[in-house]
Amino acid sequence: MREVWVDLGLDRSYKVIIAAGILEETGRLLERSIGKRKVMIISNPLVFSLYGERVIHALQSAGMKVHTALIPDGEEYKNLRQVNRMLDEAVTAGLERSSLILALGGGVVGDLAGFTASIYQRGIRCIQVPTTLLSQVDSSVGGKTAVNHPRGKNMIGTFHQPSLVIIDTMTLTTLAEDEYRGGLGEVVKYGVIYDRALFQLLEEKALMLKEREQAAVQEIVYRCVKIKSEIVAEDERESGLRMVLNLGHTFGHSLEKLGNYKSIKHGEAVAIGTLIASLLSREMDLLDDCSVKRITALFKELGMAMSFPDYNAEDIYEGMLNDKKVQDEILRIVLPRGIGGYEIIDNPGRDLLLNIIENAAEL
Amino acid sequence: MREVWVDLGLDRSYKVIIAAGILEETGRLLERSIGKRKVMIISNPLVFSLYGERVIHALQSAGMKVHTALIPDGEEYKNLRQVNRMLDEAVTAGLERSSLILALGGGVVGDLAGFTASIYQRGIRCIQVPTTLLSQVDSSVGGKTAVNHPRGKNMIGTFHQPSLVIIDTMTLTTLAEDEYRGGLGEVVKYGVIYDRALFQLLEEKALMLKEREQAAVQEIVYRCVKIKSEIVAEDERESGLRMVLNLGHTFGHSLEKLGNYKSIKHGEAVAIGTLIASLLSREMDLLDDCSVKRITALFKELGMAMSFPDYNAEDIYEGMLNDKKVQDEILRIVLPRGIGGYEIIDNPGRDLLLNIIENAAEL
Repeated sequence: MREVWVDLGLDRSYKVIIAAGILEETGRLLERSIGKRKVMIISNPLVFSLYGERVIHALQSAGMKVHTALIPDGEEYKNLRQVNRMLDEAVTAGLERSSLILALGGGVVGDLAGFTASIYQRGIRCIQVPTTLLSQVDSSVGGKTAVNHPRGKNMIGTFHQPSLVIIDTMTLTTLAEDEYRGGLGEVVKYGVIYDRALFQLLEEKALMLKEREQAAVQEIVYRCVKIKSEIVAEDERESGLRMVLNLGHTFGHSLEKLGNYKSIKHGEAVAIGTLIASLLSREMDLLDDCSVKRITALFKELGMAMSFPDYNAEDIYEGMLNDKKVQDEILRIVLPRGIGGYEIIDNPGRDLLLNIIENAAEL
Repeated sequence: MREVWVDLGLDRSYKVIIAAGILEETGRLLERSIGKRKVMIISNPLVFSLYGERVIHALQSAGMKVHTALIPDGEEYKNLRQVNRMLDEAVTAGLERSSLILALGGGVVGDLAGFTASIYQRGIRCIQVPTTLLSQVDSSVGGKTAVNHPRGKNMIGTFHQPSLVIIDTMTLTTLAEDEYRGGLGEVVKYGVIYDRALFQLLEEKALMLKEREQAAVQEIVYRCVKIKSEIVAEDERESGLRMVLNLGHTFGHSLEKLGNYKSIKHGEAVAIGTLIASLLSREMDLLDDCSVKRITALFKELGMAMSFPDYNAEDIYEGMLNDKKVQDEILRIVLPRGIGGYEIIDNPGRDLLLNIIENAAEL
C-alpha cells in the first residue's frame, strides 16, 4: 500500500491511498479517517455492476447507511441535468451536512459527483474512488469538479477537494482498451512536462504498462499522483504552476467538442494534443527533433493511435479560442521545453498552429 | 460614506461600502478595487427598471463592457432552472475567468447571482449591490449563495465571498412596505442575539426607522453589517458562531416552505421565528418575561404583523426537522439568552415546541 499526502493546509489536506484490492477496505478506511457517516454512492451502471456490491458491503460492514444513485455512462451525461437528478437523490436519501458522497467510477462520475457534493447544502464531503487510469492519475486528485455546457467542456464547476481518495489498481484490469490507453496519454503528459525520470521509466516499462502488469501500473500511478499532489499543493486554484497540467488540453478539448464528446476519448485527445504541442515546441526551438521522436515513439509503444478524425483545422483552432482557459482573448498554451520542462506561450500564431494541425493529421 | 472590512485573510477579504446615492459610483469603485472588467449584471425586471440604467451608465463610463440578464421577481424563481439560464447568458456574453457578475437586487438576486458566479468556470468574481434592507444587512455579506430545492430552502449552494459589496441606502426609499418590514425583522435579530446596545438603539429609533429616515437607516445598516462581518470573519463556514445568525430561521424556513415561498416574506418569517425562539427561551428560563415583552413591543413598533397563517403546528414542526441545519437527526436551535446573548439547544422537545407554536398563533 502506498500513500500520498496532498498538503493543502489545515482545512483541506487529504490522503490518497494506492493499492491492489483495497475496495474491500473502503468502509474501514472511511471510518478511520472521517467516521461513521451516511454515504451516497454515485456511479454508472457498468462500474457499479462490477464493483458496487463490494463497496456497499465494505461500507455496511463498517456500520454505514448507504444509498446508491447511478448516472448513465458517457461524457455526454456530464451535464447539469444529471447533477439535478443527483441532488434529488441526495435529498431523497436524507443526506445531511455530515454525510458523504462517494464517487465510484471514472472521470465523468468523479467530476459530477464532486460537483454535486460541492453544492449540496453548500458543500459536503466527497470521497473519490476512481476506477479508470485517467481518473486515478489525474482527475480524482486536486479538487477540480465540473460538468459540461453545450458550448464548452467543464464550463460549470467548483474547486472542492475530496476528503479521501482510494485507488484500487485492480480495477484497471477490467478497463476497456481505449479507456486504458486514454489514461496512458495523461501519464505520458506528466513525464513530458514535468518529470524526465518518469518519462525514461515509461520508456523502459512501456510494454509492462501496456500489458497492465500490476507492479508497473502501481508504481506509475503512484508517481503520477505524487506529481499531481505536488503541483496542486503549490497552486490549488490554477493561478500558475497547475496550468502545466493543461499540456495538450486546449487542443484536446477542441477535438472532443468537435466530436460531441463521443468520437474521441479525453485521454486520447490529450495525447494528440501533447503531440501537437511538441511539434509546436520544435518549431519554436524548445524541443529538439530527437525528443519529438522519443515522445511519438513512446505513444506508439503504449499502443496509442496517433491519428485523429479529419476535422477542419480552422474548426479545431476556433474551438481552442473558445476554451475557458482563454483570458482577455489571449490563447495561452503550455509547451514542453525539452523533456521534463515547460514553457508557457501566448498566442502562438494562427498560421503556425493551423499548419501544424494540418500536417499532424497525417502523422 | 461608511466602510466595513470583512477580514477573511489574504484571499477572500473585501470591503462593504455604505452610502446614500453611490450607485452612480459603481464603475469607479469597481475599477479602483478590481480593475476594468467585463461585467454581467443579474437583476430582476422591477429593480432593473428603477436602477439598471444608472448602474450600466456608471460601469460604461468607467470603460467596462456590460451585459444584462434578468430573472423573474420572487423567491419561487430562486431555483436551478434560472441558474441554468444565467449560465447560458454568461456563456453568450463571453464571460471569462477574469469577468465579474454584479448582483443588483434583493436576496433572491444576490443568492442566485452569487451561486452562478461560484460555479461558472469554477468560480468568477461576484459584486453584490443589494437593494433591499434584508439583503443589505444580511445576505449580501458573508458569501452564502444558494437556490432552493422543491424539498428545502437553500439546499443547493456554495460559500463564495463577494469581491465587493456596494450598499446604496437610497434604494430603500422605493422598497415595498412588506419588503422593508421583512428587513427590519433581520435587524432586530442582530440586536436580540448579539448586541444589546443595538437593541436599545432600535427601541429609541423605531419610529425613524419605520419612516425610513436616511440617517437612522444608514446607521442601522452600518451596525448590522459590522456585526455580520465580525461573525463571518470569526466563522466563515458556519461551523460555530455563525450559527447564531440562524435565530428564527429554522422555524421561519418551515413557514416559508409551507407557504410555497409565496405567502410569507423571509424577513417576516424570521421575525415570527425570533419570537417563537424567545418564547422557548422564556420556558427554559433563558429570557425573562420583561425581555419577551420588549422584543414583542419592538416588533410591533416597527410595524411587523406578529401573526402567521394558520398552518398545522405539526406540519410546521415536521418542516423544521427537514431543515438542512438538522445534523445526525438532531434539531439544533439558537435561542436568545437575555437580550444580546445566545444559547444553542439540541432537541428542545417536540411537545414543548408544538405547544409554543400553537399558542404563538394567537399572539
